[in-house]
Amino acid sequence: MAEAEVDAFVSLSPPANAYLSAFHGSASALVVSAEAAHFLCDFRYGEQAEAQVSGYGIAVVTGKLEERAGERLKELGAASAGFDPAVMNFAQYERLGAAFGNELRPLPDLVNALRAVKDAGELAKIRAANDLAEAVLSDLKTTLKPGVTEREVAARMIYDFQTRGAEKASFDPIVLFGERTSLPHGVPGERALAEGDIVLIDMGCQLDGYCSDLTRTYVFGRIPGAWFVEIYGITLRAQLAALAALRAGALGKEVDAAGRSIIQEAGYGEQFGHGLGHGTGLEVHESIRLNAQSDTVLESGMTLTIEPGIYLPGKGGVRIEDLVVVTENGCGVMTQSPKDLEVIPV
Amino acid sequence: MAEAEVDAFVSLSPPANAYLSAFHGSASALVVSAEAAHFLCDFRYGEQAEAQVSGYGIAVVTGKLEERAGERLKELGAASAGFDPAVMNFAQYERLGAAFGNELRPLPDLVNALRAVKDAGELAKIRAANDLAEAVLSDLKTTLKPGVTEREVAARMIYDFQTRGAEKASFDPIVLFGERTSLPHGVPGERALAEGDIVLIDMGCQLDGYCSDLTRTYVFGRIPGAWFVEIYGITLRAQLAALAALRAGALGKEVDAAGRSIIQEAGYGEQFGHGLGHGTGLEVHESIRLNAQSDTVLESGMTLTIEPGIYLPGKGGVRIEDLVVVTENGCGVMTQSPKDLEVIPV
Repeated sequence: MAEAEVDAFVSLSPPANAYLSAFHGSASALVVSAEAAHFLCDFRYGEQAEAQVSGYGIAVVTGKLEERAGERLKELGAASAGFDPAVMNFAQYERLGAAFGNELRPLPDLVNALRAVKDAGELAKIRAANDLAEAVLSDLKTTLKPGVTEREVAARMIYDFQTRGAEKASFDPIVLFGERTSLPHGVPGERALAEGDIVLIDMGCQLDGYCSDLTRTYVFGRIPGAWFVEIYGITLRAQLAALAALRAGALGKEVDAAGRSIIQEAGYGEQFGHGLGHGTGLEVHESIRLNAQSDTVLESGMTLTIEPGIYLPGKGGVRIEDLVVVTENGCGVMTQSPKDLEVIPV
Repeated sequence: MAEAEVDAFVSLSPPANAYLSAFHGSASALVVSAEAAHFLCDFRYGEQAEAQVSGYGIAVVTGKLEERAGERLKELGAASAGFDPAVMNFAQYERLGAAFGNELRPLPDLVNALRAVKDAGELAKIRAANDLAEAVLSDLKTTLKPGVTEREVAARMIYDFQTRGAEKASFDPIVLFGERTSLPHGVPGERALAEGDIVLIDMGCQLDGYCSDLTRTYVFGRIPGAWFVEIYGITLRAQLAALAALRAGALGKEVDAAGRSIIQEAGYGEQFGHGLGHGTGLEVHESIRLNAQSDTVLESGMTLTIEPGIYLPGKGGVRIEDLVVVTENGCGVMTQSPKDLEVIPV
């Protein structure tokens, strides 16, 4: 706050507040200055806040949290308060500002910069979430039988996550078969598995508050054609090249280019339209993005996904995604599942 | 738009865009004027948009959707554009405004007012989502055995939703046992079920895009004490009184008062700290809120939850929630599960 020249900071974002206060409920407000730390929640969360939050004065309030937060800022005599503009909606901003009556300043990176670099305790939790997701993926492969639907496999995945200790899936899982694998963000549906289908599974769980994320692409019974071997091989080479480019000090766009250039040179640049990866932690998608515009300087301790893909509408697609932690001289790849093209027996 | 005196409307909200365009992906922008209707999405969703969206010109764009939307507004020559301030973050607002270069006006109710009143097709989908949730609840009661954990029951619920046709749970379900039922928004954990426990289940599913929401509170094996019979009875009377107060033309705060006054007169007003209910549709929580401040005039076709509760920290709680549709002279209660206090056999 001193560097940003604000007297206080206010946050209404659940994941930011989980990071700053250890409170894991869906609605809370933090008001922090050099002298004070207020935690505000409504009736629903009073008991939970007493159990989870320390280091803040806890108050259960009524009405809009942003109005109560604005009043606290005013009482503190703050001349200015920072906030993260990506996680405060315009209506909250207006009500907060009206109650505060002083300057609100957008500070997009104040909390995100802290959250991007994980400490040892956070890395252990992310690793545990990754290990559980990989164990579930391994078992899930045995459910791939002719006739099983995408949605049934996704349902079994979530059930396994929750009965093996996770709070939940870290995002709606993507399970796609056959030509539907060309949808980078397809939703599992009633498509039934058949021999010769591509199988794309993008999954992760939330364990002890932290998220994992991985993708593997298989074929069921037999390879659908030489074209698939080609795009699989290119995607894997791109993924390995991006991993090799990771290290503290590298720019996000340099890592993106290391992977993307291989796909472009193979003639599939137009079929890889999304970013190379993103930060993962308390949220499955955190602020760091690896893409052609990313000027982020990578730091040791950042956890990122590396997930190039090639998507051919009407035919099918490939994506291969690992979860990694940036180190001084490279990276540690958390994801251990094999990446060579695997034919799952019918 | 004419009534609000704006030349155009812009939306970045996934559920609003699902309502206005039938697109069900996680990121899109709509730019609408009297002359034009633009649908914008990124690479990930091009194929899906072509399949789902009609009546709009579809464009797959790169970079920030709000910047591309602002450019479209500028090209249209709009002098002003409305947006919903509750579903646009401050960073999006600033980028949109910079690209547009003209007036952005907050219109909180433009789309929400349309969405609040459901047509026959929407009501049929909400009813189907409700019926599926009730069928799953009925089966779920058979899983309540000594030693089963809250999380195992929640996991089974989600699995049943997805294997019986739902896209997913409409929210993270609440399954709580014993004294933990005093947490209005508790998260299912490792608490194991024992004889004499209260069991609170708050659940719903999303089916064909629409959500359901219901809560039942049971006891397992035996009633924990006369205090529980008392708070259960008061909560049920409050719930029935609120249902009786529902009709087109009633104010939200009148319906809230009809239920809340019964709990207050019984001496438990402080233990019912949340609102009486909320709108439900494409989102499980929509814009309409039933609480002591609600000046909303209810209209025929609005779908609402009615969910009073009493929560005694350290002892336990009760919540009873039905999903209803407002009619000219009353309401139709979709939820059919019994509400008399039920002792589930051990």
